[in-house]
Amino acid sequence: MASLHLDTFSTKYKQLLEDQLRKSIDRLEAPEVLKDAMHYSLEAGGKRIRPLLLFATLHAFQKDPEIGLNAAAAIEMVHTYSLIHDDLPSMDNDDLRRGKPTNHKVFGEANAILAGDALLTYSFQLMAETPDVPADAKLALVQLLAQSSGAEGMVAGQVADMLGEEKELNLAELEYIHIHKTGKMLTGSVLAGAILSSVSEEEWECLERFSHHLGLAFQIRDDLLDIDGDEELIGKPVGSDVGNHKTTYPSLLGIKGAQDELWKQIELAKDYLLKINKDTQLLQEITDLVENRKY
Amino acid sequence: MASLHLDTFSTKYKQLLEDQLRKSIDRLEAPEVLKDAMHYSLEAGGKRIRPLLLFATLHAFQKDPEIGLNAAAAIEMVHTYSLIHDDLPSMDNDDLRRGKPTNHKVFGEANAILAGDALLTYSFQLMAETPDVPADAKLALVQLLAQSSGAEGMVAGQVADMLGEEKELNLAELEYIHIHKTGKMLTGSVLAGAILSSVSEEEWECLERFSHHLGLAFQIRDDLLDIDGDEELIGKPVGSDVGNHKTTYPSLLGIKGAQDELWKQIELAKDYLLKINKDTQLLQEITDLVENRKY
Repeated sequence: MASLHLDTFSTKYKQLLEDQLRKSIDRLEAPEVLKDAMHYSLEAGGKRIRPLLLFATLHAFQKDPEIGLNAAAAIEMVHTYSLIHDDLPSMDNDDLRRGKPTNHKVFGEANAILAGDALLTYSFQLMAETPDVPADAKLALVQLLAQSSGAEGMVAGQVADMLGEEKELNLAELEYIHIHKTGKMLTGSVLAGAILSSVSEEEWECLERFSHHLGLAFQIRDDLLDIDGDEELIGKPVGSDVGNHKTTYPSLLGIKGAQDELWKQIELAKDYLLKINKDTQLLQEITDLVENRKY
Repeated sequence: MASLHLDTFSTKYKQLLEDQLRKSIDRLEAPEVLKDAMHYSLEAGGKRIRPLLLFATLHAFQKDPEIGLNAAAAIEMVHTYSLIHDDLPSMDNDDLRRGKPTNHKVFGEANAILAGDALLTYSFQLMAETPDVPADAKLALVQLLAQSSGAEGMVAGQVADMLGEEKELNLAELEYIHIHKTGKMLTGSVLAGAILSSVSEEEWECLERFSHHLGLAFQIRDDLLDIDGDEELIGKPVGSDVGNHKTTYPSLLGIKGAQDELWKQIELAKDYLLKINKDTQLLQEITDLVENRKY
């Protein structure tokens, strides 16, 4: 039953999100190749976990999740731009993403960089154009997005990740990377829902802590998938972290230690959800999904 | 006398701008290499014509130009990010910019891409944090910046410019490129000043037309500098456009035709300034500067 609930919710709002993403790009008066490159990566699938977190947060506070469509599209655009730029030859140099050729393999490197730039830029426009909310809320969304994704957020994580490739990291350094590279945008997704729900200060704090622990759990599970995952499902060879001498939770804590740390982070995340005292069932189910995900 | 006026004004506000840029980056909690890369290109000099247009617009409407400091810094960050990305090997592949090694030559390609991303992202945060203005004005600034710099603005121009390298362009295609690649951000700079000055609809329209023609004049002068410029002043070899078989105003209209077109655009720009019926002396002097600039 519980799982059906998230399935139904997820199917409905993922579809609305896909429509919103497509329409947002379609309406742009821009060179076709640029729009094609933006469409290509936005529509390459993915778990859409950031939008789902936003919609589920709105649901918990009895708001219509549809008021978060613009913000969800903006967040997914920022996530997508980061993947396009991360895949570039000078960064991770990946030819495939989710089983499809990466953006620069299809459109060339220059167009891929510019499509990423355009998605990032457009995301702020969409945030600023969120319908039916006061100007203060729109501004808060713009600021949240900039802080989550910029030099103190996701970009910091990517820089630290690249610097870290050259050496063995300790746990604090590894956490810095993950909190910034993945965590900040997951937190930003939940807090965007919080802004649109006009939550109290206490609720804000609980949601922030919840998503912080969820983000760490997400990354630990990611590291474990590189060991026990199914290559077809995760879309890349198992064991590539070990091959690349990458510092991971299992490499620092052992497999059992990493699994224990995953459970600990999941418990902490759920504790903060309970403190909110709202109907957080969907957020709990997303948390279960993060704990057990196969890809 | 007139020229002294702009000199004094320009010296004062350029200094304030430099301070603002430096402080804005200094305060970031981010990896040092990222901050260094952001500082490097922001402080590489440049004419700062966009901030000057913003400050001069505020001055025309009897506003304290300092209220535009955040917005001016944001606009200069967007301009700077665009230069960093344009210089990349997969784009224009330039090793030098204003006589100094380009960002990716100093920090590597990945850091250059990320420094550009971080500058772009941060610019929206700075706009949203403009002090002492109502939330509506801050939102309008965010939207203006996104529209001027994104898929319908500067990025569209860069994509069209790259597509245009492969063929001979007609005048309409050449104008499309320049209006978007350079013009939109120049217009955005003037209109940011207009937002902060709460101008009337008629004034807004005149400022928009003024900056449109100024942008075209700016680009025609740029093309002419490639023919009659001083290599040391412009910082690149004269004649490189011809060498690269690039479509330019002189290549389409001849040197005299391009010079006539420059004068025409300058006249149109000044006509719209006069219609505003404010103390637009500084904006007129900037227009003279664009007409006669040697670099």
